[in-house]
Amino acid sequence: MASEDSPSPNEIDDPVYRQGMIELLGVLAYGEITACERLAEDAKMAPDLKTRAEIMAMEAAEFDHFAQLRDRLVELGEDPYEIMATFTDTFDRFHKQTAPADWLEGLVKAYVGDGLAADFYREIAAYLDAETRALVLETLSGTGHSEFVIDAVRGAIEDDPKVGGRLALWGRRLMGEALSQAQMVVAERDALSAVLVGGVDHPGMDLAGIGRMFTRLTEGHAARMEKLGLAA
Amino acid sequence: MASEDSPSPNEIDDPVYRQGMIELLGVLAYGEITACERLAEDAKMAPDLKTRAEIMAMEAAEFDHFAQLRDRLVELGEDPYEIMATFTDTFDRFHKQTAPADWLEGLVKAYVGDGLAADFYREIAAYLDAETRALVLETLSGTGHSEFVIDAVRGAIEDDPKVGGRLALWGRRLMGEALSQAQMVVAERDALSAVLVGGVDHPGMDLAGIGRMFTRLTEGHAARMEKLGLAA
Repeated sequence: MASEDSPSPNEIDDPVYRQGMIELLGVLAYGEITACERLAEDAKMAPDLKTRAEIMAMEAAEFDHFAQLRDRLVELGEDPYEIMATFTDTFDRFHKQTAPADWLEGLVKAYVGDGLAADFYREIAAYLDAETRALVLETLSGTGHSEFVIDAVRGAIEDDPKVGGRLALWGRRLMGEALSQAQMVVAERDALSAVLVGGVDHPGMDLAGIGRMFTRLTEGHAARMEKLGLAA
Repeated sequence: MASEDSPSPNEIDDPVYRQGMIELLGVLAYGEITACERLAEDAKMAPDLKTRAEIMAMEAAEFDHFAQLRDRLVELGEDPYEIMATFTDTFDRFHKQTAPADWLEGLVKAYVGDGLAADFYREIAAYLDAETRALVLETLSGTGHSEFVIDAVRGAIEDDPKVGGRLALWGRRLMGEALSQAQMVVAERDALSAVLVGGVDHPGMDLAGIGRMFTRLTEGHAARMEKLGLAA
């Protein structure tokens, strides 16, 4: 992930890189939209008004990230909604298969899912041109509201230790679903995967590098589960 | 609404004024929360991704207003969630009695309801101390996304003129419900109504003034209905 490997600004002129970068911004943008929707559903389940407002603050922050990504796509002369539309099936499938059964599952999904997505996009960011990288990193910056998720989940486990076992299983399922969806996206998108594996004029990850990336993602997931008091 | 009638900054020391002002900030803040929730529901009904994003932008703007009002209550040494909690019944009643049956009713409710609320709070703002007034006016400032409501409603009526009759009735019902809820709030809240009708040391509205205010509110409502292409 050394920055000297990153493509130069005129990389954007490379049509394959450009297409991959645009798809990446699109998938990020649509991910933010579905995150907002998911958080709006979570907010309805919040146990009190203060918590409801905290969830809504996370939602507003995600929307702000969406707006930045969308505006960048417009700047690049693209129709952001057209690009995002090509990703709706993937996200709808993921969210359908990981619909939280209750408030705590919703919190774990928000925390674990957003953390994993952020780690993954941060890995990819290393292979982007400087301007796109700065934008991606900016939209991944923590919304600063996740501390209360840790408190809420740990508190619930203290009240009823059985909850910990159920949520640990849930966390593992989320990880599995996320990886399988991510793999499908990469498999279907030549340009997007080309950003990651590199092209003739810029180096990317080799197979060993991709393996190491998965190790890092798994470690990050385990660390988040541990913070929540859950076995990874 | 001349500004020389407005209370001076040390008005805040008057316990009745202070209580009324705090209740006003609380009702505004909780109104923003329910507006966010309503918009999240509307977003789900949006006909396309672009419109969905526009609705979510309105929601994010309302949340930002909420945060400002909440922070001001904290600054004043109050528990914002405790104050807001006393208004939940009123809003829940209003929203239950005016649940939109479809996407267009949701749009009309957002446009007509927010407009009416903004007019009403702007009237009250004239009787507030300068700092609170500035905050209230700031949170009423248009979120700049309502133009597309006008286009959507007018477009739907063009496609099917019968829609216009149904939505006109809906708009009148919204106005009636809003007035009856507002009246209940004022009737139940001595301190809040004291802000409007004045106290020993600052003038407020007399009965004729309240009558004129209702006339202005009704005119504003009629103007909004006309913009939407609806008979008021």
